[in-house]
Amino acid sequence: MTTTQPSCKVVLAGSIAKGLLAEVSDGLKSIEQPPHLLGILANADPSARLYAEWTEKTCKENGFQYTLREVGKDQVEETIMNANADQAIDGIIVYYPIFNSRQDQYLQQIVDVSKDVEGLSHRYIFNMYQNIRFLDEAQTQKSILPCTPLAVIKILEYLCIYNTILPYGNRLFGHTICVVNRSEVVGRPLAALLANDGACVYSVDVTGIQKFTRGEGIRKRKHEVEDMDGWGLEDCLPFCDVVITGVPGEKFKFPCHLLREGAVCVNFSSEKNFGPEVKEKASIYVPATGKVTIVVLLRNLLRIVQNRRAGNSKPAEAVEKPEKVEAANPRNMA
Amino acid sequence: MTTTQPSCKVVLAGSIAKGLLAEVSDGLKSIEQPPHLLGILANADPSARLYAEWTEKTCKENGFQYTLREVGKDQVEETIMNANADQAIDGIIVYYPIFNSRQDQYLQQIVDVSKDVEGLSHRYIFNMYQNIRFLDEAQTQKSILPCTPLAVIKILEYLCIYNTILPYGNRLFGHTICVVNRSEVVGRPLAALLANDGACVYSVDVTGIQKFTRGEGIRKRKHEVEDMDGWGLEDCLPFCDVVITGVPGEKFKFPCHLLREGAVCVNFSSEKNFGPEVKEKASIYVPATGKVTIVVLLRNLLRIVQNRRAGNSKPAEAVEKPEKVEAANPRNMA
Repeated sequence: MTTTQPSCKVVLAGSIAKGLLAEVSDGLKSIEQPPHLLGILANADPSARLYAEWTEKTCKENGFQYTLREVGKDQVEETIMNANADQAIDGIIVYYPIFNSRQDQYLQQIVDVSKDVEGLSHRYIFNMYQNIRFLDEAQTQKSILPCTPLAVIKILEYLCIYNTILPYGNRLFGHTICVVNRSEVVGRPLAALLANDGACVYSVDVTGIQKFTRGEGIRKRKHEVEDMDGWGLEDCLPFCDVVITGVPGEKFKFPCHLLREGAVCVNFSSEKNFGPEVKEKASIYVPATGKVTIVVLLRNLLRIVQNRRAGNSKPAEAVEKPEKVEAANPRNMA
Repeated sequence: MTTTQPSCKVVLAGSIAKGLLAEVSDGLKSIEQPPHLLGILANADPSARLYAEWTEKTCKENGFQYTLREVGKDQVEETIMNANADQAIDGIIVYYPIFNSRQDQYLQQIVDVSKDVEGLSHRYIFNMYQNIRFLDEAQTQKSILPCTPLAVIKILEYLCIYNTILPYGNRLFGHTICVVNRSEVVGRPLAALLANDGACVYSVDVTGIQKFTRGEGIRKRKHEVEDMDGWGLEDCLPFCDVVITGVPGEKFKFPCHLLREGAVCVNFSSEKNFGPEVKEKASIYVPATGKVTIVVLLRNLLRIVQNRRAGNSKPAEAVEKPEKVEAANPRNMA
């Protein structure tokens, strides 16, 4: 055995963000005045504050306007409603957690759909799970995708995991992806997005493993979910060429010895879910995703401004009628 | 279940050949006079004649000179030796099988290394198995790779299976590939080439399954081989995202029901090893490779002319000394 160095390529979020930023700057040229993003901070979480500061910095450096409003928890609802009504504000981001309870979900739905840059409104989430990509029948207004899941998708595009020889919506067909985290804000939407692009996804959390696919021969318009009773990480990892983790807390360490040789590993948690031994096995390792998420946020802001312009002459109308909602698989509802 | 069409993309060799041809034409511009290829045909095999005709057509259409010499079996050796000595001939291709026995391998070694466009000389084959990419220490003369295996590699590049974000020599790391055929001319060299680029390769023939890898953490300079005793196709296919077949004869049909969803399937046999049901499972299907092989042949011819030019001022010298040969793994010897 020779002693050559392991051949893992470490890719930093900053490098990935650069290309996306160029795309956003390009789109900005077609807008009359700089879009204005309002940040609402109502907690003392240092990582929320850091995220707010990074957003401000990225906005200012790239021709966006940014205002941070710091308020008490009980003022958040009113602050959002005022911002909804304020013509000078194009997009709203609220730094969660605030109450760290169901009340946070309530607040997410207060943000006006036309200003929801985070893509957390029920309408956007519903469209994502149903694989509906536009807001109007004429397909002039794109639906907004949640920032962190979309950031992970953009990272996989950058890493050439998406196969550009295949048609859109099919570019992950043939990949088997493990997502460790099934939160409503990131893990579950991410698994659905990946499955909607053709991947076979093992979604892992403490309650067990679920398989997200588009079904046999990927002939379905949206994903389907199957419980993998009795399965553990050791059962799915031999098949997984991509592993994405986002487990909060310092305690969790991904069992790197179970990784398939040459797997692509992405961590979106602010904790280091992978130990340094990940480089012994992985072909590509992305240790963090935050900088990409912020650019995706600006991309969403730009899109929202473009949607408003496209929709100005006609009211935005959902493609799906309400009765369709009841027919949908309840597991796919956010 | 909806009745949408299966989403398999069928990619024809002609489309892939086009891009490679452009590259070859580009290289041709730096050569003073059109390289001259001699074809030697000494059998009545209709597919050998067809290959000769295709080669002639492709040569003439792309600025290469081509001469076909039809001789009896017993004249082949002398014809090759005359061509070796003939300054007007740059490259030699012999259409096999001729004797369909060990005598064919003898003939392969008669062709002068500096005119061997098929890359079948022992020196080239040795370099390939040892992952030695140049003929000289100064790295001005590239070693020649055998046509059909190299054609398959070029096809995988076109299909974006090679990950261009990874460094050269590592671009298949993370892929698991099944090669059904372990002939000395195509299957075994192909498995070695794929493993040398970082893939885990299951090489399948009637005698059993072997695993070609670069070893733990791919830290080795060349591949290593492991017998997978008792394994069948059903054991390796669940892991394989790429399946390459080249089984001669009409009888063999690949068991498509064992394919992993979204596998990339390539057939280099002149027989259709995959039935039409391959499209129900595969993401990409390449039904034949011949047109790419012919372009690779011209690419090798061009390279040989360039090598001769680069080596004109100094004698070409192998990087490896003879004593190294004895130290090598005998399984890796051609």
